[in-house]
Amino acid sequence: MIIVIRKDAGPEKLAKLESWLKDRGVTPRVSVGEQRTIVGCIGDVSRIDEGMLSAMSDVVASVKRIQEPYKAVNRQFHSMDTIVEVPVKGGGPLKFGGGNFQVIAGPCSVEIEEQVVEIAKAVKAAGATLLRGGAFKPRTSPYAFQGLREEGLRLLSIAKEETGLPIVSEIMDPRELEFFDDVDILQIGARNMQNYELLKEVGAHSTKPVLLKRAFSGTIKELLMSAEYILASGNPNVILCERGIRTYETATRNTIDLTVVPLLHRKSHLPIVVDPSHATGVASLVPPLSMAATVIGADGLIVEVHNDPPHARCDGAQSLTPENFGEMMKGIRNVRPFACR
Amino acid sequence: MIIVIRKDAGPEKLAKLESWLKDRGVTPRVSVGEQRTIVGCIGDVSRIDEGMLSAMSDVVASVKRIQEPYKAVNRQFHSMDTIVEVPVKGGGPLKFGGGNFQVIAGPCSVEIEEQVVEIAKAVKAAGATLLRGGAFKPRTSPYAFQGLREEGLRLLSIAKEETGLPIVSEIMDPRELEFFDDVDILQIGARNMQNYELLKEVGAHSTKPVLLKRAFSGTIKELLMSAEYILASGNPNVILCERGIRTYETATRNTIDLTVVPLLHRKSHLPIVVDPSHATGVASLVPPLSMAATVIGADGLIVEVHNDPPHARCDGAQSLTPENFGEMMKGIRNVRPFACR
Amino acid sequence: MIIVIRKDAGPEKLAKLESWLKDRGVTPRVSVGEQRTIVGCIGDVSRIDEGMLSAMSDVVASVKRIQEPYKAVNRQFHSMDTIVEVPVKGGGPLKFGGGNFQVIAGPCSVEIEEQVVEIAKAVKAAGATLLRGGAFKPRTSPYAFQGLREEGLRLLSIAKEETGLPIVSEIMDPRELEFFDDVDILQIGARNMQNYELLKEVGAHSTKPVLLKRAFSGTIKELLMSAEYILASGNPNVILCERGIRTYETATRNTIDLTVVPLLHRKSHLPIVVDPSHATGVASLVPPLSMAATVIGADGLIVEVHNDPPHARCDGAQSLTPENFGEMMKGIRNVRPFACR
Amino acid sequence: MIIVIRKDAGPEKLAKLESWLKDRGVTPRVSVGEQRTIVGCIGDVSRIDEGMLSAMSDVVASVKRIQEPYKAVNRQFHSMDTIVEVPVKGGGPLKFGGGNFQVIAGPCSVEIEEQVVEIAKAVKAAGATLLRGGAFKPRTSPYAFQGLREEGLRLLSIAKEETGLPIVSEIMDPRELEFFDDVDILQIGARNMQNYELLKEVGAHSTKPVLLKRAFSGTIKELLMSAEYILASGNPNVILCERGIRTYETATRNTIDLTVVPLLHRKSHLPIVVDPSHATGVASLVPPLSMAATVIGADGLIVEVHNDPPHARCDGAQSLTPENFGEMMKGIRNVRPFACR
Repeated sequence: MIIVIRKDAGPEKLAKLESWLKDRGVTPRVSVGEQRTIVGCIGDVSRIDEGMLSAMSDVVASVKRIQEPYKAVNRQFHSMDTIVEVPVKGGGPLKFGGGNFQVIAGPCSVEIEEQVVEIAKAVKAAGATLLRGGAFKPRTSPYAFQGLREEGLRLLSIAKEETGLPIVSEIMDPRELEFFDDVDILQIGARNMQNYELLKEVGAHSTKPVLLKRAFSGTIKELLMSAEYILASGNPNVILCERGIRTYETATRNTIDLTVVPLLHRKSHLPIVVDPSHATGVASLVPPLSMAATVIGADGLIVEVHNDPPHARCDGAQSLTPENFGEMMKGIRNVRPFACR
Repeated sequence: MIIVIRKDAGPEKLAKLESWLKDRGVTPRVSVGEQRTIVGCIGDVSRIDEGMLSAMSDVVASVKRIQEPYKAVNRQFHSMDTIVEVPVKGGGPLKFGGGNFQVIAGPCSVEIEEQVVEIAKAVKAAGATLLRGGAFKPRTSPYAFQGLREEGLRLLSIAKEETGLPIVSEIMDPRELEFFDDVDILQIGARNMQNYELLKEVGAHSTKPVLLKRAFSGTIKELLMSAEYILASGNPNVILCERGIRTYETATRNTIDLTVVPLLHRKSHLPIVVDPSHATGVASLVPPLSMAATVIGADGLIVEVHNDPPHARCDGAQSLTPENFGEMMKGIRNVRPFACR
Repeated sequence: MIIVIRKDAGPEKLAKLESWLKDRGVTPRVSVGEQRTIVGCIGDVSRIDEGMLSAMSDVVASVKRIQEPYKAVNRQFHSMDTIVEVPVKGGGPLKFGGGNFQVIAGPCSVEIEEQVVEIAKAVKAAGATLLRGGAFKPRTSPYAFQGLREEGLRLLSIAKEETGLPIVSEIMDPRELEFFDDVDILQIGARNMQNYELLKEVGAHSTKPVLLKRAFSGTIKELLMSAEYILASGNPNVILCERGIRTYETATRNTIDLTVVPLLHRKSHLPIVVDPSHATGVASLVPPLSMAATVIGADGLIVEVHNDPPHARCDGAQSLTPENFGEMMKGIRNVRPFACR
Repeated sequence: MIIVIRKDAGPEKLAKLESWLKDRGVTPRVSVGEQRTIVGCIGDVSRIDEGMLSAMSDVVASVKRIQEPYKAVNRQFHSMDTIVEVPVKGGGPLKFGGGNFQVIAGPCSVEIEEQVVEIAKAVKAAGATLLRGGAFKPRTSPYAFQGLREEGLRLLSIAKEETGLPIVSEIMDPRELEFFDDVDILQIGARNMQNYELLKEVGAHSTKPVLLKRAFSGTIKELLMSAEYILASGNPNVILCERGIRTYETATRNTIDLTVVPLLHRKSHLPIVVDPSHATGVASLVPPLSMAATVIGADGLIVEVHNDPPHARCDGAQSLTPENFGEMMKGIRNVRPFACR
């Protein structure tokens, strides 16, 4: 951390700042320049609050952080890929990260037993390794279908029982954790990326893998800080999920920058999956984007598949049919050997 | 709602769509053009899912909504300003909306009893009518100060007791509601604008006024839909809060478009306050922005004031001193008579 | 085009609007609904100004356009891919579009003869089919290197002479066109995407292919409208270029949404190339992004390559060495057979 | 400028970097920390290219600039407000900056003599001090009205002759400068903020005041760098213009952050005016935004006024009638005494 000192700050103010830093376990190193005096901070600055420093506006002109504020998720302190394992009945675990690649597929929301079982069988046949399905649904409108809730999770369990596919479902409230016993991966949706009470809950009271989605306007740094909340609370099994951000462009539902995938791989040891369905919002754009995400080095995909998209109770426009999905999986298998990792 | 039909969709598909609409209580009115066939929907379309329609891609080319999806918060169905009242011990209630103007001031986070009481007295003396203070704090880093929690609320109660100022504090988790008995306005922060379980909770289990902040990348429409959640759950006392959005520009902390104030006043009957402290992130820019927000017609301000900004435990850089705040209040009083409402 | 009529507009105002539309060659079709009256416009509405209609605020509530405002570049009116040809000395022409794929490579700016010739030879050996190089340079700072200008174009000609590679270079001012005789593709940079006088000039006074880059905050529709300027002025040889847009995220230089590639292919018949160098701003992210762009269906790439990036006079940080570029080209060749077109 | 050195860079590489810096007239000051080595640069670093430094990726980890890259427009080197003067026939000059306040008003585009003269008289009567009018019009569509060009400037001259109001009009191409002899302020539009050839032209070949508009996605820093181009080319008479930026929010045409006004006043000595018409795109939002802009400290306004908005040939929806404008001017006069400067 580097602190640029105001030109008009005298030696007493500077001394006061130095002692403030020392009180917090950091060694200040003052460098007096022709135009500017600069204080470098040596030691563990991760707990020093930049805002607090900036507020000392009688002495501090600006503050520049050199080290990233995240530790547990930082590749710098953990050079090996984290491999997140999902247990599978009667088999070895499924692995995310470290060169493994998984495809999560299923309906946006769970509707009726026949639907979810049929889709689960279809996506398994086409090559998916996990089943997704929404039971607790975050909807912009209070009048839109809010999900089957507990009943939805029960239907997912039936589909899991029938196909052997581990299941992924979204949790929206710390109080819902008790219902997720049979769920294999807890999904935190984009709207809850900074719902810190929820992050602490799944960090402290569960060791299940957590699929953490990037917020609509979350920065890469904020996504990693939110993952840090989960790890710091005790759960190391986090899978990051890129799903596009909100920009001025409305031709696509969101704007997804795939270079985030190699970039996150450098910054963090956590696996990262891509959600092409929410990124584009248009079914026919999902396969090309999935191909690109695979080639650029994603550790997996999470894709919406529905057996009857026009009658899906949510997000039909972005859902593939099982046939489209099967076709797409062939393409994925073709390019996987050339993926950039 | 207007549905544009695909050029290649035959009469059978069109008939199927018409019957689908009728099943949902809407009357379709088909208009066959030279180049395009269009279906206008007459009746209550607020519960028709646009996504579902778009998904019928064999017949639907595009869908355009004419009416807003929100009802309870819509000015069209409720032409008078909603006046949100906050009871005051030993006096008539404070009012937001309908030409009334309130100034909420106080520290970003509650730290110690002396601090909060001192600040409360100072802001009251300068003209503030409510006291703000964070007890449960949403922080980007798990290592940053997370607030005094229940203890923080207790200190706010002491300040309320001593000054008579009603208090405003942020709630982050439905389970925390029980601690907020003595709090007068429940604040929902930007990060929780779409935490729907929390919105339903404060809507269904409280009748206290709710100050709902716009999310970092929330649209006007989404802000109103989130307010709709609270009203639809049973609590009509919502105060909207504009606090700036996230854009590519980093010279200011957020980008706040004040024209949102008159625009929201047209779209909704709810009062709207402006938060200049989070909008700018820089104390010296707070007074000019507050003046502008007052003139453009805001129903109030929520401003961070701290008696020792450089040593505030959070957001010191954007906090005014009581002296700055007092100076600012003089300016506000000068321009209030000319406000655009 | 659909016009929603104000509830309080009486029949006279409506009749006046109808006659206004008829005067402009459009047939209005009025549909009176229970809640809303709507006017559909039949005929060629491409020359009707939406803003003008919206301004008739005593009768018009809102205007919705159904057809795209662009014609010449619209896939709807020209279903076959446009193939843009670049003549090559002593050989058949290079082709962009229609399943053809070209790689343009070279330095950000042309510096000295040895450099440009050496790079040209190296990129040709690695598989590039055209040479890029900046002579007229748009730089944010007036104090930064502004390019060698005419001299730079002369050096590019020498490299073209020595290698046979056609050359691509940026034009910034209509007055510069006279210097571009030996340049094979005229590049319009992101900053000039809406420099309409320049677009008209290269449209009316040249038939050379134009590589049109998307502006920092250009929408897909605006990019196509700018291409429309060139076609409407007489030059059909336009190659679109996606190079990332400006968003709130600063971890990457720009945010490039590759789904723009299949999306543009649907909306327009023009070829589209991707610029991974400006999109990422970081050399090591260029190869993975190039792989992804190839797989998703781009008609080509434009990549910065420099023989000594640390000493490049501009954009060194995003330039590949010839070795990196050669390595990348191997990956491209691996995935090209599986590209989504 | 501070350079953070890579952990794995040995002393030789560091020495090479030091000598590279010295060659460019800068004194390096090395500070070896426990975790990081840092090089501070002393001297004039305004001509050192950050990109070039970043490209030395074998030795440089990151580069942080402390001083702003602009000089001539920087308040730090020119503490007094620049006052830009516009000569007025038969009177003292009009002044922008230094506490003076001007209102520029008129039609978006000049259409016929009667119109422009009538509007000019009306805005003068209401208190406007300059007349605006577009002759050369940048339009998104090649099929939209492109302005009357030279003829438009001739009509503006007639209106100037009749009313005595100095005139402001947009220039889009360096070749058009010859037609602007009678124009008093040359406007550079948002789309041309980074048309550097045009900036250099109005800087080198004119001493007339230039009204420079911020680009759709221009940063504050880029706006100042573009102004720097004009000053560095020889013309010190620049007026900055804030007109809103492009964001994800579509409820308003653009998003205008008025805190830019006090912020720019700190960073630069140049006057700054606000364009509420393009910022909002909606006539009824123009007066409240104008009031707010006045109070926050703008040095002037530029407002679209049309005598018959529904029949304006462009931007009718955002144009005030002369009556609305007169009403608004009364409000402006009320709040001007309390403006924050």
